[in-house]
Amino acid sequence: VNRLLVLAADAEAYSALLSAANLQKLELVTAVDADSAEAVVDTCNIILGDPSLVSTVLDSARNLEWVQSSWAGVDQLCQAGMRRDYALTGLKGIFGPLISEYVMTYLYAFERQVFTMLANQARRCWRPLPYRPSKEISLGIIGLGSIGRHLARTARQFGIRVTGLNRSGRPCEDVERVYTMKTIAEFLEKPDYVVLTLPDTPNTRHFINAGTLKMMKTSAVLINVGRGSLICESDLVASLHGGGITGAVLDVFENEPLGPESPLWQIPNVYITPHNAATSFPEEIVEIFAANYQRFVQKRPLLNIVDFELGY
Amino acid sequence: VNRLLVLAADAEAYSALLSAANLQKLELVTAVDADSAEAVVDTCNIILGDPSLVSTVLDSARNLEWVQSSWAGVDQLCQAGMRRDYALTGLKGIFGPLISEYVMTYLYAFERQVFTMLANQARRCWRPLPYRPSKEISLGIIGLGSIGRHLARTARQFGIRVTGLNRSGRPCEDVERVYTMKTIAEFLEKPDYVVLTLPDTPNTRHFINAGTLKMMKTSAVLINVGRGSLICESDLVASLHGGGITGAVLDVFENEPLGPESPLWQIPNVYITPHNAATSFPEEIVEIFAANYQRFVQKRPLLNIVDFELGY
Repeated sequence: VNRLLVLAADAEAYSALLSAANLQKLELVTAVDADSAEAVVDTCNIILGDPSLVSTVLDSARNLEWVQSSWAGVDQLCQAGMRRDYALTGLKGIFGPLISEYVMTYLYAFERQVFTMLANQARRCWRPLPYRPSKEISLGIIGLGSIGRHLARTARQFGIRVTGLNRSGRPCEDVERVYTMKTIAEFLEKPDYVVLTLPDTPNTRHFINAGTLKMMKTSAVLINVGRGSLICESDLVASLHGGGITGAVLDVFENEPLGPESPLWQIPNVYITPHNAATSFPEEIVEIFAANYQRFVQKRPLLNIVDFELGY
Repeated sequence: VNRLLVLAADAEAYSALLSAANLQKLELVTAVDADSAEAVVDTCNIILGDPSLVSTVLDSARNLEWVQSSWAGVDQLCQAGMRRDYALTGLKGIFGPLISEYVMTYLYAFERQVFTMLANQARRCWRPLPYRPSKEISLGIIGLGSIGRHLARTARQFGIRVTGLNRSGRPCEDVERVYTMKTIAEFLEKPDYVVLTLPDTPNTRHFINAGTLKMMKTSAVLINVGRGSLICESDLVASLHGGGITGAVLDVFENEPLGPESPLWQIPNVYITPHNAATSFPEEIVEIFAANYQRFVQKRPLLNIVDFELGY
């Protein structure tokens, strides 16, 4: 018999779905926060949960064999010095559609000036505004994992021109040209929109800083759907205020929730969303857990194993 | 030698592009309004222009052989009693991408609550809001011409469920089920978003009225990217105010520009845009004109001939 701790704010939803899935030889324990988890975690050999919560009880989980993350970013479980004597599985491949919805929505909100339209509407003002055909819009995607590739395909459907940057520079479907760090200056000088889909690793920290911001067009808009650590926020604020780039769409931040003191809240052309560009739908996560649980029981290799060194 | 009157607000842009295209045996005259057109129109056998302007000089165009519309809607040239002794050509097939951008942008603006997000941002308030996965969103498209079909394909790329309604009920790619007027009640009761892409004809006038609005879900949002005459605006206002449908995205109106006295401007969940969901890019129009001009010179059948009776 295996004992599963479901450790997530919406543990009840997971629990109902897991019970309905009727997984064999599986006992269920739920906790919605670290305190209640602490009391039961040492009896469990599996955890399904939010990495930020799981990280707080990791050391007490004496019988731990496997953690299935309920979220995309697993960096909080991959820090130096943390235990690595268990299997950590992630959620690769499911957030591409949600992130693509978010990016396309805000990209066209800029292009079609929907917020200006709304302000005009409030004044009962009828004023058509010009916009570009999509074939004249360029999108540069940093990180061409499953999310970046799904976004490229979606943007192509609209006729947008797509370039990308990753470590290998290997060609990628729907991406006109793939650049590497050696050619980053050439890459960053072209796109109207630069989208970050990188994970949080020691190599990606402050990827966007004063130096890389200067490589971008002054008309460019930066979109971060990756992790907050990818951007040096003070450099971004300086660029937005000081004649650097034009705007930003930010779903993730160096510190979350973004504090009321942050200047980002009220810079023109900056749009803030509270880390929900993509959300985990419990139905989908439970389906993934159930498939991996069959493998776990049969002692077959788990899907979407995270490499603790790489951090994804 | 043929003489072409370019009659459009941006006649200068057209003129420059037409000169560059270097079309054989073609003399060019431009006018930006009806008054200046009146003086020269009788010397021209071809007009390229905005149907609302062209309609005002039609009777003075004694040598007219062909009108190429610079816009999608040609209803102003198809009214009963107007002359029909010339060839009228339209612009079928080019507005699908622009209309799809517009519809998807506002659809996800609703789903992702981008306007609420912006209001929260103004208050420096971090509050994630729930949303549905796209496979749970249903879109009903009324009119499955080139615009409706392009929209269906784009929505499917996002995983949205698409149904449609047209005269024939013939199956259509990317559309789960095509309904007809006989099954309109069954069709209208399902979609979260109902999109109008119909042309303005005697048959489509006030297609949306108290009766059809009652067939829609109270949570439904109506999107009109067709023509203003498709909706009985007083019935729509009554529905929005009286517990009928939830919202509307309107790009076209019974009278344009929409007057400041219209109650539509300030109904919650109603978004007004000034008839620019799709715009004519002169480069594209001139390309289409040039191709048709070759056919005209060679006395071959023109492309996109409008049927005056059908009105499209």
